[in-house]
Amino acid sequence: METKQILVIHGPNLNMLGSREPQTYGTQSLADIDAALVQAARAHNAGLQTLQSNHEGQIVDAIQQARGAFDALIINPAGYTHTSVAIRDAIAMLEIPVIEIHLSNIYKREPFRHRSMITDVATGQICGFGHHGYLLALQAALQMIKA
Amino acid sequence: METKQILVIHGPNLNMLGSREPQTYGTQSLADIDAALVQAARAHNAGLQTLQSNHEGQIVDAIQQARGAFDALIINPAGYTHTSVAIRDAIAMLEIPVIEIHLSNIYKREPFRHRSMITDVATGQICGFGHHGYLLALQAALQMIKA
Amino acid sequence: METKQILVIHGPNLNMLGSREPQTYGTQSLADIDAALVQAARAHNAGLQTLQSNHEGQIVDAIQQARGAFDALIINPAGYTHTSVAIRDAIAMLEIPVIEIHLSNIYKREPFRHRSMITDVATGQICGFGHHGYLLALQAALQMIKA
Amino acid sequence: METKQILVIHGPNLNMLGSREPQTYGTQSLADIDAALVQAARAHNAGLQTLQSNHEGQIVDAIQQARGAFDALIINPAGYTHTSVAIRDAIAMLEIPVIEIHLSNIYKREPFRHRSMITDVATGQICGFGHHGYLLALQAALQMIKA
Amino acid sequence: METKQILVIHGPNLNMLGSREPQTYGTQSLADIDAALVQAARAHNAGLQTLQSNHEGQIVDAIQQARGAFDALIINPAGYTHTSVAIRDAIAMLEIPVIEIHLSNIYKREPFRHRSMITDVATGQICGFGHHGYLLALQAALQMIKA
Amino acid sequence: METKQILVIHGPNLNMLGSREPQTYGTQSLADIDAALVQAARAHNAGLQTLQSNHEGQIVDAIQQARGAFDALIINPAGYTHTSVAIRDAIAMLEIPVIEIHLSNIYKREPFRHRSMITDVATGQICGFGHHGYLLALQAALQMIKA
Amino acid sequence: METKQILVIHGPNLNMLGSREPQTYGTQSLADIDAALVQAARAHNAGLQTLQSNHEGQIVDAIQQARGAFDALIINPAGYTHTSVAIRDAIAMLEIPVIEIHLSNIYKREPFRHRSMITDVATGQICGFGHHGYLLALQAALQMIKA
Amino acid sequence: METKQILVIHGPNLNMLGSREPQTYGTQSLADIDAALVQAARAHNAGLQTLQSNHEGQIVDAIQQARGAFDALIINPAGYTHTSVAIRDAIAMLEIPVIEIHLSNIYKREPFRHRSMITDVATGQICGFGHHGYLLALQAALQMIKA
Amino acid sequence: METKQILVIHGPNLNMLGSREPQTYGTQSLADIDAALVQAARAHNAGLQTLQSNHEGQIVDAIQQARGAFDALIINPAGYTHTSVAIRDAIAMLEIPVIEIHLSNIYKREPFRHRSMITDVATGQICGFGHHGYLLALQAALQMIKA
Amino acid sequence: METKQILVIHGPNLNMLGSREPQTYGTQSLADIDAALVQAARAHNAGLQTLQSNHEGQIVDAIQQARGAFDALIINPAGYTHTSVAIRDAIAMLEIPVIEIHLSNIYKREPFRHRSMITDVATGQICGFGHHGYLLALQAALQMIKA
Amino acid sequence: METKQILVIHGPNLNMLGSREPQTYGTQSLADIDAALVQAARAHNAGLQTLQSNHEGQIVDAIQQARGAFDALIINPAGYTHTSVAIRDAIAMLEIPVIEIHLSNIYKREPFRHRSMITDVATGQICGFGHHGYLLALQAALQMIKA
Amino acid sequence: METKQILVIHGPNLNMLGSREPQTYGTQSLADIDAALVQAARAHNAGLQTLQSNHEGQIVDAIQQARGAFDALIINPAGYTHTSVAIRDAIAMLEIPVIEIHLSNIYKREPFRHRSMITDVATGQICGFGHHGYLLALQAALQMIKA
Repeated sequence: METKQILVIHGPNLNMLGSREPQTYGTQSLADIDAALVQAARAHNAGLQTLQSNHEGQIVDAIQQARGAFDALIINPAGYTHTSVAIRDAIAMLEIPVIEIHLSNIYKREPFRHRSMITDVATGQICGFGHHGYLLALQAALQMIKA
Repeated sequence: METKQILVIHGPNLNMLGSREPQTYGTQSLADIDAALVQAARAHNAGLQTLQSNHEGQIVDAIQQARGAFDALIINPAGYTHTSVAIRDAIAMLEIPVIEIHLSNIYKREPFRHRSMITDVATGQICGFGHHGYLLALQAALQMIKA
Repeated sequence: METKQILVIHGPNLNMLGSREPQTYGTQSLADIDAALVQAARAHNAGLQTLQSNHEGQIVDAIQQARGAFDALIINPAGYTHTSVAIRDAIAMLEIPVIEIHLSNIYKREPFRHRSMITDVATGQICGFGHHGYLLALQAALQMIKA
Repeated sequence: METKQILVIHGPNLNMLGSREPQTYGTQSLADIDAALVQAARAHNAGLQTLQSNHEGQIVDAIQQARGAFDALIINPAGYTHTSVAIRDAIAMLEIPVIEIHLSNIYKREPFRHRSMITDVATGQICGFGHHGYLLALQAALQMIKA
Repeated sequence: METKQILVIHGPNLNMLGSREPQTYGTQSLADIDAALVQAARAHNAGLQTLQSNHEGQIVDAIQQARGAFDALIINPAGYTHTSVAIRDAIAMLEIPVIEIHLSNIYKREPFRHRSMITDVATGQICGFGHHGYLLALQAALQMIKA
Repeated sequence: METKQILVIHGPNLNMLGSREPQTYGTQSLADIDAALVQAARAHNAGLQTLQSNHEGQIVDAIQQARGAFDALIINPAGYTHTSVAIRDAIAMLEIPVIEIHLSNIYKREPFRHRSMITDVATGQICGFGHHGYLLALQAALQMIKA
Repeated sequence: METKQILVIHGPNLNMLGSREPQTYGTQSLADIDAALVQAARAHNAGLQTLQSNHEGQIVDAIQQARGAFDALIINPAGYTHTSVAIRDAIAMLEIPVIEIHLSNIYKREPFRHRSMITDVATGQICGFGHHGYLLALQAALQMIKA
Repeated sequence: METKQILVIHGPNLNMLGSREPQTYGTQSLADIDAALVQAARAHNAGLQTLQSNHEGQIVDAIQQARGAFDALIINPAGYTHTSVAIRDAIAMLEIPVIEIHLSNIYKREPFRHRSMITDVATGQICGFGHHGYLLALQAALQMIKA
Repeated sequence: METKQILVIHGPNLNMLGSREPQTYGTQSLADIDAALVQAARAHNAGLQTLQSNHEGQIVDAIQQARGAFDALIINPAGYTHTSVAIRDAIAMLEIPVIEIHLSNIYKREPFRHRSMITDVATGQICGFGHHGYLLALQAALQMIKA
Repeated sequence: METKQILVIHGPNLNMLGSREPQTYGTQSLADIDAALVQAARAHNAGLQTLQSNHEGQIVDAIQQARGAFDALIINPAGYTHTSVAIRDAIAMLEIPVIEIHLSNIYKREPFRHRSMITDVATGQICGFGHHGYLLALQAALQMIKA
Repeated sequence: METKQILVIHGPNLNMLGSREPQTYGTQSLADIDAALVQAARAHNAGLQTLQSNHEGQIVDAIQQARGAFDALIINPAGYTHTSVAIRDAIAMLEIPVIEIHLSNIYKREPFRHRSMITDVATGQICGFGHHGYLLALQAALQMIKA
Repeated sequence: METKQILVIHGPNLNMLGSREPQTYGTQSLADIDAALVQAARAHNAGLQTLQSNHEGQIVDAIQQARGAFDALIINPAGYTHTSVAIRDAIAMLEIPVIEIHLSNIYKREPFRHRSMITDVATGQICGFGHHGYLLALQAALQMIKA
């Protein structure tokens, strides 16, 4: 029985993973990552749903609907990381653990990527470990649910 | 006969009013506020329509369609207040009074909320009075239409 | 019987209203505004006193003396808005609602007018509606007293 | 036979062209501009499609779908020019020439319009020539495809 | 007959001239300067009155009362140069030439003295010539009245 | 015989001590502090006078008149600490020790309180020790007179 | 008959084109570019003169002398783009279209190259298209003369 | 057989864990954390050594000596995170994966903690998960060694 | 007999005076101004030479050659005011009074004109009085020579 | 009987006192100061130990060991004042009064000395009174222990 | 036989060396320095030519002509150090060692002298050793040619 | 007989020279450099001692002990260059020439390396010449001792 439910949200352009700038983002597709996440969650008797959107408003909608339906949120806000107050405000309303994840080490990249609008309303942040970061985020989520 | 028509736009996450961080935003729901606004407008023989959206593009669409259809705009851009040039540009095209309204006193909050992309293309701003602010904004709108 | 007492403080140069840069500040004199405020307050069974001063120290004195004597303060700090820590500190001591009001939309003007030393110790702010703003401020004050 | 295909994307509020602030943006409608572009492209044996959207996410979607389908992109990101990391990231994935175009000279306008999130991932920029700029952009695109 | 009337306002601490830091401000007293100004004005058939005050509010009062009574204002705002929006606003209301004067070259001193709140609402500025600067300011005033 | 004379100046709002935000400023009244200071001075055969004013100009006047009359100045410029060039200039003219004192640790408070216009023209600064700070300032003054 | 006359000014170091950092500036020499421009102008019945100088003063002289003699100016200010107020002021005096052109995309390069002192006094800017940019600039010039 | 060796370095004040500000850093002691890490490493057939030091120079020494001796470094630079170029340079010399870990979410704390001198020379960063973060870091290290 | 010699240097674009943006710079030509200066100098038994150049290097040359040959320098550095360290350094070598003069009030114009590289190595500055400013500068120069 | 124990920590280079830049730091040696402190403490029945170190890590060690052993800490962090997060964090763990002391008035010196990393985690600060400051700090410590 | 040729360029105002501010720049004339450089170069069998100019354009010309003719460049850009993109771009084209030299320690002087536009396109920098610096630069040049 | 004694201090991570990032720092080991320095010093009849440390405190200790024992200091502060006020203060106490040396051109690297805390208390700086820089520094030291 799946006792805990986890929502994973992938932000804009992450649907291009695998084909997009592989030296930065790796060669795994988003479907590969989602499959691995579902499998890993199941191994912990947890359910996991995923969503990818290029639309800021859809991401806000999804976060709002997570209230009461999920026990933790894993989010890679991608390009909206650095600018979206709307996503930030939606996250701030949640009372569940929120794990911010980035494939690349955003602090090695352009200066505008060093500031996240999300981190200080999230529980914690994981970045720089490529697709492995998602599995670490899943573990962090499971541990934060327990804590 | 309703001689004046007023459009009220609520930005992202305002659909969560009442349940969201009540110490900041109060306990009234958005439906409560909208009902009070419609009633107050009617008392002045004015029509009033409301719209809430988490989508920046929908808000831009709505502002564009207000041209010729409404005599004043009351807008709480919420999270888009601080970042949206698109909403700003749409407002700048309107030739009717535009009232910017915030439930909380945005100048008491995080520094990134102190700058509004909207205020200098609006007629004026009202903030910090909770749901009462909407009724003040309605009065401001009616007076600005007359002026 | 006037059950509530409201103090209105006008800062420097507002005594010149009507003759001063009418395209920015309108053509009503300060006496006109004060008369309208007194009348509107009376309509709500409230008392209202007004004070204009070009002297920062006198404004501080007046705010201090408002403690225990008034139920709300409406203040247009004018030129002291952007620089006066003394007025800010005096307001911070008050435990009554404080409404900051500006005739013009200060965010449309010179950059040094975009920062107010007052707003984050006030209850809320109203700006950009000309002399109508004072009547909105009076209504805000009455509602905040009730709240 | 149309051997080359060019995509033209118009950002938010550009659908209002002609009626919106004509002293800044000119009196031609977007339909006029699109018609002129299609005709000019045909004169060079090129195909040309156009898209206007007020929605950041739709623009990201469109840019993603341009991969493999178009030989060059002409984009006027309008209000999203200055804030959209999502559009920037989508453009950075394209391996075709990208021409950034603005009707007005953005460096004559408000300071926040002086910074583009797009330019340093585009091939080049053209601004300040009104609707003529689009035809220049078309020529630039055709030359960059050849180069 | 004195056909033109000129007001000279000296700001805070200028009453200490002669005894105060003579290496910076020279050894002439303010009375000496005022006497020389009156005499020089008379030589041009002009009347001249002087005022010194350490009180920002009194300076604002005096500037307001200059309307209609004087043909030009010469002002050394001293310590209020860098901070007083109230004095700035009072000057902006005057429609006569306003000459800003400083004894020392304020740009050779601490950085906070490099910014004047006054200059951009004055006609022009003279600084760095010690007490001679007042006589230059008088000539500038007389020429600006004619111009 | 009182061989040394010390002037103590209290800036704006300090007359409210005891009733004002006691968690920040303590519960002693200004009269209590002044009495303790006079008594402590007398124990060192020194005279001590105190002045409180909300008026920047009065504080400037008082500092000017301290020349020749007092052997040291203890000043809590309160709200004028951060903005008054006029008080700074008056202090810079004094050739006696000047002790700047703050009840609270100004570096724990809002960023605008971290910069003092006064410290670099004073002998030294004491802050954060509540009303005890005044007695430390008195001792500092007596020692600096000797040094 | 050449009815329109166009002046092209090349700033410092552009005489090295072709041999200088070809990966940034391309392999065409300045003579090649000038020849292509003259030919293209002639095809539109326009005259075109070119000037290259490493001397800021000579460029100012040339711009001044363009008054009355030319119908449009195309200028690549090169290293003076970012610092020259003198060139800016000379351009601001002209009442003919001024096209700013850069071979490289200056927004992809060092931060100090992102600010142009010229753009906001020019009609428009073209950058990033290598030597093709000059021909685009010529077309822009011809169109702006007509407009 | 332990085929991989991992070094864990704890920076200044982390020896106080458990007793220090438990609301920020949790109640586990550093010994508890180290024991859990050794045990978890062993479960993956990896060896793990730990070091805590308050001395920047000792941390630099230890990082230098890790070359050739360890397969990955997990480091919580604590107070040196934000200022130490020496530690940064030592890390930059290593050619093994380096995982930066913080117990607290440093982006929720004072602004000076938002900038890390370490992150952009590390492989990735994990923060905000309390003592669980160390185990996530261990997993990240093991995965990065494999990758 | 002309006992004092004064050099007047006019910077770039001032040769265009009279025809250039007359609303900013007035309608007098530079020849008119120079003639008035020579005549006014003669009335004080002083010699006066003038130089205009668009070339920074020529202005530096001229300042260097002023040593020993002139008793005061009046300089309007125009566009070089804000950027030229070379002119600044040349002025700093002179041991005669140097009067900086600007026709317009540079503090009313673009922000980059608010900083002068020259003022803090000059004796004083006069700005905002149009061509009258040159005559004031001449008087300032004569008085500074005497002082 | 010594009922209270006070720790005094002197940071880097303070061991050179007396020989080092005496115009800034005075002629007393550190041994003189320590002796005076011990004697003054004894007069209040308090014990006092002193430590000087040039090593940031040793200072952190010492502060950590003060827990439970001392009733107050007096610290002159000297060169580490402006940069040491490690010392700051160690101080923040202490629950005893902490007095920050500087011999010189750090606000009269280079700008980088105006920011202390320590003050906002200390109880209060004393600076500018030379070696007398240590005795004032001792009195402050004793009073804060009582308070 | 002189196998290597070295060019030395002295920027604006260096022709005044010896007479100009000797406390900053020393008492040697530029001719003395040039003679010493020629002699020292000859001792290493190298040829050396020198150029001084106050004209930015002439310096750019000279650097361009150094290509193919010289094996190293020693340049003291003086006042152009901090502002000249044109000189920077000319240097960036050279493929020979470039030694930047300053007589004074530019980091001890005004803040605007702390930034060099040249250093990051030069091989290295030597400053603060007066005229000795030129001989060190010559040795650096000879070593860099060999390397 | 060695009449002059020179101390050379190498900061953190310089003990790794030769193995560390050779493309930046070269292939010579520190022992090679030290041997060359000793030999070169001996050729000038000077003694030379060297010290490498990763510990800021040890470097401060060593600088303090150089007083009276050495005639010049050559220091490569490496990672402490940009942050150490303690090393700066220790150097400021020395009255002997101090030569700051860097192997790489620090102005070509990350922005945080562009600011040195040391340069403005050193005699001069040499950077960018690799290991040759040390020998240049030795010559500079010997010349500065003589001067």
